[in-house]
Amino acid sequence: MPYLTIQWRGGIPGKIVLIDQTRLPSELAYLEIEEPRELFDAIRRLAVRGAPAIGISAAYGVVLGIQGEPIADREALVRAVERSCSYLATSRPTAVNLFWALERMRRRARSLAPDLSPLEMKLTLLEEAHAILEEDRLMGRRIGENAQRFLRSGDTTLTHCNAGGLATAEYGTALAAFFEAARLGKTLHVFADETRPLLQGARLTAWELRQAGIDVTLICDNMAGQVMQQGKVSSVFVGADRIAANGDAANKIGTYSVAVLARHHQIPFYVAAPTTTFDLSIPDGSHIPLEERDPTEVTHPLGLAAAPEGIGVYNPAFDVTPHTLITAIITEHGVIERPDAERIAEHFRDSGSRGGPAEAGG
Amino acid sequence: MPYLTIQWRGGIPGKIVLIDQTRLPSELAYLEIEEPRELFDAIRRLAVRGAPAIGISAAYGVVLGIQGEPIADREALVRAVERSCSYLATSRPTAVNLFWALERMRRRARSLAPDLSPLEMKLTLLEEAHAILEEDRLMGRRIGENAQRFLRSGDTTLTHCNAGGLATAEYGTALAAFFEAARLGKTLHVFADETRPLLQGARLTAWELRQAGIDVTLICDNMAGQVMQQGKVSSVFVGADRIAANGDAANKIGTYSVAVLARHHQIPFYVAAPTTTFDLSIPDGSHIPLEERDPTEVTHPLGLAAAPEGIGVYNPAFDVTPHTLITAIITEHGVIERPDAERIAEHFRDSGSRGGPAEAGG
Repeated sequence: MPYLTIQWRGGIPGKIVLIDQTRLPSELAYLEIEEPRELFDAIRRLAVRGAPAIGISAAYGVVLGIQGEPIADREALVRAVERSCSYLATSRPTAVNLFWALERMRRRARSLAPDLSPLEMKLTLLEEAHAILEEDRLMGRRIGENAQRFLRSGDTTLTHCNAGGLATAEYGTALAAFFEAARLGKTLHVFADETRPLLQGARLTAWELRQAGIDVTLICDNMAGQVMQQGKVSSVFVGADRIAANGDAANKIGTYSVAVLARHHQIPFYVAAPTTTFDLSIPDGSHIPLEERDPTEVTHPLGLAAAPEGIGVYNPAFDVTPHTLITAIITEHGVIERPDAERIAEHFRDSGSRGGPAEAGG
Repeated sequence: MPYLTIQWRGGIPGKIVLIDQTRLPSELAYLEIEEPRELFDAIRRLAVRGAPAIGISAAYGVVLGIQGEPIADREALVRAVERSCSYLATSRPTAVNLFWALERMRRRARSLAPDLSPLEMKLTLLEEAHAILEEDRLMGRRIGENAQRFLRSGDTTLTHCNAGGLATAEYGTALAAFFEAARLGKTLHVFADETRPLLQGARLTAWELRQAGIDVTLICDNMAGQVMQQGKVSSVFVGADRIAANGDAANKIGTYSVAVLARHHQIPFYVAAPTTTFDLSIPDGSHIPLEERDPTEVTHPLGLAAAPEGIGVYNPAFDVTPHTLITAIITEHGVIERPDAERIAEHFRDSGSRGGPAEAGG
């Protein structure tokens, strides 16, 4: 890809360099982040967003939180890591990759050899964050490959929000499927839902697909039903922010509506997500906390008032698509068709992956 | 209501005074229109919109077109009316009320007594336009009354776009149901879809309902599925721009998606529309021309760029909800439950109404 969503610049000390996604598509600008507080803010205001990207940047955020600390020994380091993790964990409630990445950094800190120097300990944690990023890149490639059986040249597919390179380290989840198809020479046409209130589809997905030379048509969210009704859509691909043990999947608000519409029109509906997005500690989607965001995101599109002042607003950031509406979940290890608790457990057994849930301990 | 969507000021000559709906809710401003060309422009840019309101203003537009003409006799007047009607008919393609109102003005011109003075002829046509407006006001009241059997105190209902006083002369169609319920002391809660791309739900419906003291919550279009999933919605009420002989109903883009979502959640879906919105000359919705509008409505919400420059866009202004998804159509004459060609024909027979279609001759 011609852009990198998240980079670490330097060693110890170093800083995070992030694409400021709030400024796309008019500007490809980067944020340089040297303090956990700045990262917290960037996550809150969605300068970095997408479940995998939040996880990766949080891992680097732990390094930011400890790199300047005068660490006497491993116990002091573990305490500093714990503090950073507790702080960053409160940035957003829904994406499980955040908690998974923080737990992984915590475990790495606890398992450090006690005779390392403070700098060596910090560098080891930085290596762990680098590993999370590299694994994510590989994950995107694998998801893209595993999705190919569902994409033929000439297909017209629809996606919601942004599950692309900008939501991950590089390739994405749902969009990785399209990028890989394009790499293989398949001709795709993609409808991108604009995805109110923050327009990630219009701003980010349309931009990414065009960068990749993929034919894209932008529509408002409420047009998805009509293009399906007209027989224009052969499949739907979306990402996920958290998937319960039975396959119920939380994703950007509006995903559930698209899933219902796809079912009504007998169009296959695919969720593309790494195993780190699964939370096997919760039996179903009713246990997924769903963030509600500021009403002004709805009343003030792009910052301009569009509604009467003080009007009541409901602004959930996510919804949950029940597994019964999902044709298949595509992970880096393969495909879970007609996902349910049994087939998901089997997928994790076969792949040897433990996923986000078990590792994060809930 | 504390505002009048459309008024005629003066006699012959006179002018149309319209609320400029593009400036709501930040400003309640009026347009003074003295030329058909100005009205054409106001209809095109949606300063006046909503099928009934378009029809009423077009009737007055015919008067604008002839009031300054030096008319020698009835034949000259009929020719001038024909010219005005042909011109105004090209302003928007979908709402049948436009063609119905123009046809009514044409017929009135043809039936004028030939011995009237030119001024008397012009005044008679102005009276006809006044009659169309007055009938529309009464129609709104009746629709509101006829809808009451579907609304109980405590209900939470959902509406899409704006089918209120601003879409008609005064009370509206779908919103007339809510206004009447409020007048009867019923407590309603209404979810208003914001209705991209032009945000009529956020700008107009939220404003009208609040003016009427009705509890309203604004949501993005893609949240409708989630609020239904959570059991928060007991019914859906929408308007229509054209209804075919079998009950298939064209309405603002996104209505079809809401209808599918309502069906999935077993929520009743009501269409409120006067008989003038029916086009009995077409057997089903596939014959309804659907306007496509400028891509910048999608790429530039409120005029600000939100998408990459030059991106492909699909921007249909309307979609068609098949009659099989409609629980009932509510007209000024009563209710058509489980609408189909037979029940609709019966409704027109029983009420003695001929509707838009037969009168407009297609």
